[in-house]
Amino acid sequence: MSESVELDVAQARELALAAMRGRGFGEAEAEATVVALLAAERDGLPSHGLSRLPYYLDQVASGKVDVAAVPRLECDGAVVRIDAGHGLSFPAIDKGLEAGYEVVARLGVAAVSIARSHHFGVAGAPVEAAARRGYLALAFSNAPSAMAPWGGNRPLFGTNPIAFACPRRDGDPLLLDLSLSKVARGKVMLASKQGEAIPEGWALDAEGRPTTDAEAALAGSMLPAGDAKGAALALMVELLTAGLAGSHFGFQATSFFDAEGEPPSIGHLILMFDPARFSPGVLEHVEALLAAMQDQPGVRLPGDRRYARRRESATRLTLPAALVAELDSHAALA
Amino acid sequence: MSESVELDVAQARELALAAMRGRGFGEAEAEATVVALLAAERDGLPSHGLSRLPYYLDQVASGKVDVAAVPRLECDGAVVRIDAGHGLSFPAIDKGLEAGYEVVARLGVAAVSIARSHHFGVAGAPVEAAARRGYLALAFSNAPSAMAPWGGNRPLFGTNPIAFACPRRDGDPLLLDLSLSKVARGKVMLASKQGEAIPEGWALDAEGRPTTDAEAALAGSMLPAGDAKGAALALMVELLTAGLAGSHFGFQATSFFDAEGEPPSIGHLILMFDPARFSPGVLEHVEALLAAMQDQPGVRLPGDRRYARRRESATRLTLPAALVAELDSHAALA
Repeated sequence: MSESVELDVAQARELALAAMRGRGFGEAEAEATVVALLAAERDGLPSHGLSRLPYYLDQVASGKVDVAAVPRLECDGAVVRIDAGHGLSFPAIDKGLEAGYEVVARLGVAAVSIARSHHFGVAGAPVEAAARRGYLALAFSNAPSAMAPWGGNRPLFGTNPIAFACPRRDGDPLLLDLSLSKVARGKVMLASKQGEAIPEGWALDAEGRPTTDAEAALAGSMLPAGDAKGAALALMVELLTAGLAGSHFGFQATSFFDAEGEPPSIGHLILMFDPARFSPGVLEHVEALLAAMQDQPGVRLPGDRRYARRRESATRLTLPAALVAELDSHAALA
Repeated sequence: MSESVELDVAQARELALAAMRGRGFGEAEAEATVVALLAAERDGLPSHGLSRLPYYLDQVASGKVDVAAVPRLECDGAVVRIDAGHGLSFPAIDKGLEAGYEVVARLGVAAVSIARSHHFGVAGAPVEAAARRGYLALAFSNAPSAMAPWGGNRPLFGTNPIAFACPRRDGDPLLLDLSLSKVARGKVMLASKQGEAIPEGWALDAEGRPTTDAEAALAGSMLPAGDAKGAALALMVELLTAGLAGSHFGFQATSFFDAEGEPPSIGHLILMFDPARFSPGVLEHVEALLAAMQDQPGVRLPGDRRYARRRESATRLTLPAALVAELDSHAALA
């Protein structure tokens, strides 16, 4: 049994900010990161929440994350180029979104390409933000390799998320957020920690054979969602993200979960579309499809579960005591 | 045994053009359509080849395809809007690509949205064309409904293709082209014609139960690739295509395969990205990933099988005698 600690969200926020300051982050970069991690906690996605912060901070210590990085921006036509400079992704994403909003309002479409970045966080977050401004949005990120190309046995692609959001006439955007592996790699990591087997069909071992051994799966590769189709889409995401941004492909990127080696230096791509520039009444029209979906018992709109968790989220967080102690020790460096 | 006829490609081309003229198509629209259908034959994709033409022509007779439609174009920022006007898709796609090339050269990104259109044809064709001009390209189309939302049992979404191409430094573009159903609906149609069963896992019957009966599957729904993830991506494609274009969603669209009812009036979206506007040396960089893939025995680059069939394609086509007779009867109307 691991001990846990209960904190107010405001206390957790201060703890996380103090830990980032302790490692030398500027206020803007710390704020952007902590907002994103707390939003993941609030949405019931703790694997993308505060548990990530000790990894980020250990990587500052080892030089894998550049604490002094300030995202650099260049706008060129409908393209927004952001160089995250081996810092964390969140300040780069925020800067890219702000510039993207200006471009999409002017040109109807914007492509925000983020280079030399780190863990994308919750892929649904930036597209949800864009949809709340009235834009349809698509986001892609690559990640350290965990999936082999179809027919192969060595991982080359990340489990590469695709997220999409569409504004609703009223209420929360439609929001979908999926990774291209059959199941999240975090589930295998959890099974490995707990010494449990995994179901067949999730992963292959290092020789490309089906395995139910979680350790062997982590040394091998995750199976793609939809078999060859998911593997093809993961390749597409590599090319749209790291390919366009001139950043590391999955097989070139170091782990998000240790402090070894160079910066992961991966890429992201966020696309935005202004519906008013495409045809009149898009958001009215979209409601017809969503109403037809909701007419069918058993159908849930993508994003609804996340919004429900958000609405039910407590003002207090329960965090592992070890995580709180780690964050405190980083804060003490200030 | 059905009889077949062997024709030179040039003869097949004349036959198809004559059939389209017989039904009243203008030269430009007939030319664009026949070029696309013959390219599908050449690439070993006969389900998207000349076999489609009798359906198109019967739909002219019934008013479901407007033979007089000339695609209308509006450019606005990075958005190219094409109204296919209930004509066939191919002249609209060609016009959209030409305008898109001008926009992507100027702004680095172009979004070509095609409204009130018909069967998209081979989704890989327009992205391959854009990649041969040096652009990364993504294409989406919706289609008459064949897949239920996840958890539901009534089809609302098409099997909605996604295609992507990336230029290579040398040689043919990387090309991926996939539909979001687990298997192509054409396989179920074939099994139904031949009175054969289909494997479990392909489709559901009209009550949402797994079925191996091809007839029941055609009255029911196709299962999505990657389960809930494929269904979510099919919804995304509906919104990016028919949603943005203000055209019919899958569940509102009439069949491509009969002459009943209104025009299908579906939508397409083609996105183009100029790699030079994103980062220097993108195409060099891409080669590193593709080389790592080709290092693994058993891995084939997406598109290679299609290009191989193209290279091996004969200068003569074998067509069903009934198809040739049908095309002749349309030609005789001239």
